[in-house]
Amino acid sequence: MRAVDIIEKKKQGLTNTKEEIEFMVNGYTKGTIEDYQMSAWLMAICFRGLNFDETAYMTEIFVKSGDVLDFSDFGTHIADKHSTGGVGDKVTLVLIPLLASLGVSCAKLSGRGLGMTGGTIDKLESIKGFNCLLDEETFKNQIKKINAAISSQTPNLVPADGKIYALRDVTATVDNKSLICASVVSKKIASGADIIVLDVKYGSGAFIKTKEEAKDLANLMIEVGKRLNRKIDAVISSMEQPLGNCVGNSLEVIEAIEFLKGKFSPDLYEVTLEIAVRTLILAGLAPDFDSAKNLVDEAVNSGRALLKFKEIIEAQGGNPNCVDDYSLFEIGQNQLEIKAQASGYIQVLDALDVAHSCKLLGAGRDKKTDKIDFGAGCVIHKKKGDMVNKDDVLLTLYFNAAPSARVQEAYDFAKSAYKISNEATLKTSVIEKF
Amino acid sequence: MRAVDIIEKKKQGLTNTKEEIEFMVNGYTKGTIEDYQMSAWLMAICFRGLNFDETAYMTEIFVKSGDVLDFSDFGTHIADKHSTGGVGDKVTLVLIPLLASLGVSCAKLSGRGLGMTGGTIDKLESIKGFNCLLDEETFKNQIKKINAAISSQTPNLVPADGKIYALRDVTATVDNKSLICASVVSKKIASGADIIVLDVKYGSGAFIKTKEEAKDLANLMIEVGKRLNRKIDAVISSMEQPLGNCVGNSLEVIEAIEFLKGKFSPDLYEVTLEIAVRTLILAGLAPDFDSAKNLVDEAVNSGRALLKFKEIIEAQGGNPNCVDDYSLFEIGQNQLEIKAQASGYIQVLDALDVAHSCKLLGAGRDKKTDKIDFGAGCVIHKKKGDMVNKDDVLLTLYFNAAPSARVQEAYDFAKSAYKISNEATLKTSVIEKF
Repeated sequence: MRAVDIIEKKKQGLTNTKEEIEFMVNGYTKGTIEDYQMSAWLMAICFRGLNFDETAYMTEIFVKSGDVLDFSDFGTHIADKHSTGGVGDKVTLVLIPLLASLGVSCAKLSGRGLGMTGGTIDKLESIKGFNCLLDEETFKNQIKKINAAISSQTPNLVPADGKIYALRDVTATVDNKSLICASVVSKKIASGADIIVLDVKYGSGAFIKTKEEAKDLANLMIEVGKRLNRKIDAVISSMEQPLGNCVGNSLEVIEAIEFLKGKFSPDLYEVTLEIAVRTLILAGLAPDFDSAKNLVDEAVNSGRALLKFKEIIEAQGGNPNCVDDYSLFEIGQNQLEIKAQASGYIQVLDALDVAHSCKLLGAGRDKKTDKIDFGAGCVIHKKKGDMVNKDDVLLTLYFNAAPSARVQEAYDFAKSAYKISNEATLKTSVIEKF
Repeated sequence: MRAVDIIEKKKQGLTNTKEEIEFMVNGYTKGTIEDYQMSAWLMAICFRGLNFDETAYMTEIFVKSGDVLDFSDFGTHIADKHSTGGVGDKVTLVLIPLLASLGVSCAKLSGRGLGMTGGTIDKLESIKGFNCLLDEETFKNQIKKINAAISSQTPNLVPADGKIYALRDVTATVDNKSLICASVVSKKIASGADIIVLDVKYGSGAFIKTKEEAKDLANLMIEVGKRLNRKIDAVISSMEQPLGNCVGNSLEVIEAIEFLKGKFSPDLYEVTLEIAVRTLILAGLAPDFDSAKNLVDEAVNSGRALLKFKEIIEAQGGNPNCVDDYSLFEIGQNQLEIKAQASGYIQVLDALDVAHSCKLLGAGRDKKTDKIDFGAGCVIHKKKGDMVNKDDVLLTLYFNAAPSARVQEAYDFAKSAYKISNEATLKTSVIEKF
């Protein structure tokens, strides 16, 4: 078997066999296939695609490339959730304690953020002392004890994806649904979950731009997950504007805590509910949407979900008092307000512009080695469809940086995120039924 | 400028600027662009293509990546010819002495063969003592003195192509007309020629399979050559069956000598004539086809072309007596005859099968380091359109290897090259007018 022939087949639009995909992926992971051959193959895949079988093989081969966490001795379902990423997406912070309080075992392996604002791990680290580097035993023991643990990914989980993703990132071969599917689903499977609910986001602030692409990707990931014997479902949600009212690490954790206290923005509630409901149904804890929704609302209203969050924080070394004392969080000392230029209705609040603004203030990183400023970010006061008067405050930026061209640029980005017009705009659901 | 953005643009079907192409090609040649980025870009080019401007820029950047031979002090045209490669293609061996005897200065830089049977350099080296490793000064002085020199390419000519071609070879990115054009035309330009005639071959024994692709490639190379201020023309010729009657290094040189003595197969004459005529017209030595043809025929019939070949052989260290004494050549000691299985007309004589057969006998190489057996090859007695009786000898294989499975395989390939049927088949011209 020669790599060049496997590349040529894919280039011509033919199907690669399971053995050929194994040859490429395992060879690349071991270092016997060169990176220039892998990148040529990946580019050919971007043009020709992988069919369903090829995608499932690739996912399975990814899983087998490293360790697979084993929860078989738990005698219960293990749930995990994955979002394809968006601006202000703090769903995990709300969802995990909520589901854990309802008796669902949640083994959450999350990543750090690159490119936009911080990832779940970055957000949690804005809670002082919170330790996300759990070894496998600690991770499992915590789940046994309190139904939930949140850890950053161990390096030996799906090493094939780690190496291939790094290559895709620098060779313009990221945006192929089969490659995305293999990357996402393999990690969820290797992390030991048998119930997986995916949040596939589309729009300005997501890397998938259209609803149709999101549906395609969601369907593919569901089918591949099923083929690999997982209970799997997906939610399609809009990322045209940031989710909820806060963007930035400390601010998003505070928003998640507020949610668990019963105070939430409708869009964040909608997405969280939808994912929670699907998980509860897959876990057999509720027969339908309405009864699952009742469980979710009850977990929040009773305060049990908040209590579970405190348990998680305490178990992982953080100070649970932060839930009641927000002064324990770093919040940007400086503020800048974005005001409405005119009266009217907000037509657009562009998620990507807001993300750029927050990143410039320090909420995200460009390089793996960049340090995040937990206190940087923004609070959004007005969203799409809101009616505003001239000079109303639309958004407040929080930051620690001294005034500079960079801060000015962040301000300009936040300002340009808003479009206001005289026409009334409908507030639409962020969830796409599918 | 970032490589990943340049790759992404091409992937999306957008145009790369001259600066972007320079960034990629020069960066790769210098080692600042990684090979995995170059291969991803090349694969995107295979799918999206390069437009005319991009192709011309690429060719020009290739030329400038290394040395360019300078014949400006010669005060005359310098001609070169290039074939895209085929089976039994000994045109250069006939053409260069022929043109040189007519006063055309020929600076011929040729390659060794890889994949099929030997290249021009391999063929010439079957003349004992013939030295193809001429330094620039020797090369130029010989042209000044006797109008012709044939040398293997110096390593510092178009290093960008050398490095990129090696990468294309192992990443299935060879068959793109713009990349082929940049590779071929840049080398012809860097070798100092101002008159370039290309022989673009198509069919079973060529890497271009259809007439249409050959025309597209020829037109592109002509236009790019003109853009870069060269007098350039091209011939399209069929490579369905081997050219002439011999395949293999010594045997092809002998066939070339026979040609210069006035004994030639019609197809080899047709191709050689067409290229010679176009060169003479570009050089201003003949106004039209008929007068150029007269010059060519006269050069052969007078014996001046043969004399010139002897001069070239002598100048480059070979024994010119080989022209009259073929025993000075190594010829395979063993012979095997392929006989007609039935009476009828030859419908097909497949060039690729013949090439495979000869390569198995030692006439070609798989790896750069393989040694060629100059005596291996075949003499073809019957070609497409010929009427044969059962058991007529169609082809004789020559080889030195002992009987073996490999020799048997070579025999089987040669046998399978022929298709005979009862229907009369037209002998067609190998030259495609265009």
